[in-house]
Amino acid sequence: MLHQPADAVVVGGGVIGLGIAWRATQAGMTVTVVDDAPGRGASWAAAGMLAPVTEVHYGEGQLLALNLAAAGRWPSFAAEVEEASGRPVGYRPGGTLAVARDADDIAALEDLYRFQLRCGLDVQRLRSRECRQLEPGLAPGIRGGVLAAGDHQVDNRALVEALLAACQRSGVRLVSGRVAELAVDGDRVTGVVLAAGGGPPAAPPAPSRPAGETLPAGVVVLAAGCWSGRLGGLAAEALPPVRPVKGQLLYLRGPASEPLCSRNVRGLEVYVVPRGDGRVVVGATVEEQGFDITMTAGAVHDLLRAALELLPDAAELELAETVVGLRPGSPDNAPMLGPAGPDGLVVATGHYRNGILLTPVTADAIAELLATGRVPEAIAPFGPGRFAAAPGRRVS
Amino acid sequence: MLHQPADAVVVGGGVIGLGIAWRATQAGMTVTVVDDAPGRGASWAAAGMLAPVTEVHYGEGQLLALNLAAAGRWPSFAAEVEEASGRPVGYRPGGTLAVARDADDIAALEDLYRFQLRCGLDVQRLRSRECRQLEPGLAPGIRGGVLAAGDHQVDNRALVEALLAACQRSGVRLVSGRVAELAVDGDRVTGVVLAAGGGPPAAPPAPSRPAGETLPAGVVVLAAGCWSGRLGGLAAEALPPVRPVKGQLLYLRGPASEPLCSRNVRGLEVYVVPRGDGRVVVGATVEEQGFDITMTAGAVHDLLRAALELLPDAAELELAETVVGLRPGSPDNAPMLGPAGPDGLVVATGHYRNGILLTPVTADAIAELLATGRVPEAIAPFGPGRFAAAPGRRVS
Repeated sequence: MLHQPADAVVVGGGVIGLGIAWRATQAGMTVTVVDDAPGRGASWAAAGMLAPVTEVHYGEGQLLALNLAAAGRWPSFAAEVEEASGRPVGYRPGGTLAVARDADDIAALEDLYRFQLRCGLDVQRLRSRECRQLEPGLAPGIRGGVLAAGDHQVDNRALVEALLAACQRSGVRLVSGRVAELAVDGDRVTGVVLAAGGGPPAAPPAPSRPAGETLPAGVVVLAAGCWSGRLGGLAAEALPPVRPVKGQLLYLRGPASEPLCSRNVRGLEVYVVPRGDGRVVVGATVEEQGFDITMTAGAVHDLLRAALELLPDAAELELAETVVGLRPGSPDNAPMLGPAGPDGLVVATGHYRNGILLTPVTADAIAELLATGRVPEAIAPFGPGRFAAAPGRRVS
Repeated sequence: MLHQPADAVVVGGGVIGLGIAWRATQAGMTVTVVDDAPGRGASWAAAGMLAPVTEVHYGEGQLLALNLAAAGRWPSFAAEVEEASGRPVGYRPGGTLAVARDADDIAALEDLYRFQLRCGLDVQRLRSRECRQLEPGLAPGIRGGVLAAGDHQVDNRALVEALLAACQRSGVRLVSGRVAELAVDGDRVTGVVLAAGGGPPAAPPAPSRPAGETLPAGVVVLAAGCWSGRLGGLAAEALPPVRPVKGQLLYLRGPASEPLCSRNVRGLEVYVVPRGDGRVVVGATVEEQGFDITMTAGAVHDLLRAALELLPDAAELELAETVVGLRPGSPDNAPMLGPAGPDGLVVATGHYRNGILLTPVTADAIAELLATGRVPEAIAPFGPGRFAAAPGRRVS
């Protein structure tokens, strides 16, 4: 029997939810996205660095393969989003230079370098002088570095706006509101129930629904980031075990004609991402603080100190913005992608620090799943059910 | 012949201009204040610490006397402003604890201590343990300190709002606009000419005047802070030699129930002023950068580092706001108070780092000058003409 694509409601309008909605609509489905502030969560607070290896730990081989596939998909995905939206996404293949300040850093950098070589990446070990030839603004004390020429970046905020535009052009319905609970009939999810009150209006004009209204759906895609585990209507065990991982990040700004650096620069404790227009992103803390979104003096200090140690001229730049985001953390740092327990529910969350990087493969794969009913090979290892029997499972 | 008090126009609606206008109106004069954003300049960016000695350098004996007089006047002035406005100004006599982190700091602190003793101040030299008994949040490495029990603080932003309210209640006219030039007839200032364009509306609803309009005045009080030297209508030499001295400052915020410290805490490079409601002011840089008002990454870093070295728990506080102000600097760090060259012009600016502290004595003395035509004894040493023949005079 052929799979009949059903109308879908996507809970969450970050880059993951928007990407899925856009792709699924292209595949002929009718898709509604519910969010009270589309793209203003973790997607907005990201740095947009597309570095498939540096965010991966040993023993996370399947995640690494997914990240590498995502990195390879990015150039064509960026072109497709720009074509569909008529907006730039700021994709730039400038590379990343990871640098070491001292002997401890050198040891860590050597580890990373060997790991990257084993992954088959195009990396190059550089001496101190070679680093400064590439980036003259580096501190004189820099001891050496590793250049990953294939790394790239995207302007995550431009990506949000482009995906919103692509969704609107392709006919995705955006509903401004919050989902209070899943509508469940027996063992089947049949839609979503909107929350009372609601939030601020969505960035683009979007119809606002009366609270308590149910939006019926053949399938519900749960892509609400770290909030994906807090919906009513199902037992907590049936929802993805996702938790918020706080990240604080800074935007600096200077003259575009005098760039601080010309490619991503990383230390052990900080990354510096130049946007090419004078903006420079400095990130990011990784904190287990629950749903707290306070910008703290200590985090700002630590980020600035680490950035100034690498690139002293950053002191002269304007501190233009401070940003806090909550990453959707998962028990094994890999995303949860695919059908969940109850019929009619698909999960796409838990992307942790790789949400922007994994947007293309997530959008492609979940849209394919919705259209065909089959789990694509690429995401097969990442089924949400993999934690069901694990000890110490966290549902927060 | 009796002096006839004339209608006055006050150029500048910071605490100095508002204080003068309020006092002069109380004395029976008709006063108009012109500002496009009253109280939102240096007055808003101040910290409100009222410490007459620590901001004074050796050899500035007359300024010290003025500061001490101002500090003595503050308790009654605060009560009067609160009575007149019906608003609190946040006056708190908590004292200041200046602390030393190392041997260099100790030497500097000893110098300050001896200077304070010679000034007859109530100061007490404390050992490390005694400092931490007073302020348990101090870093363990603090080597010792000096307690100035008589120091106090005022909430400078509450003071702005209270002075605005006092002005409105007493009949001061607030005109929202910028003064382009002084209206001059022969050797006499006869009013002010408003600038085209204008700025945002004043905080309280204020009549906005058409650009180019002249407001006639029997006397013009120039209290426009660091902008006081940039008016048209007179030769630059006839205007006060005031220059902008950039100050960057932070507001932290935590629970009022867990105060970071209970009195002002100073190091050599930073002061920390707890407001008592959870807000904590951390200031301030002193920079010669012209009229630049960029909040820089380097300044935020340096202020946070210095504050965290003294009070490590500040790391957990929210970085609630960053503020930049331009102090009106003068060639000798003392204010310029009194009649200037042309008839009909009175100057009240150049308060540098002491604007909040000196508000009471400035308001009292200039209002008395306007009412009587005589220069009060208290401000006699600070006549604006004292720089006329000085070498190296700066007019910026």
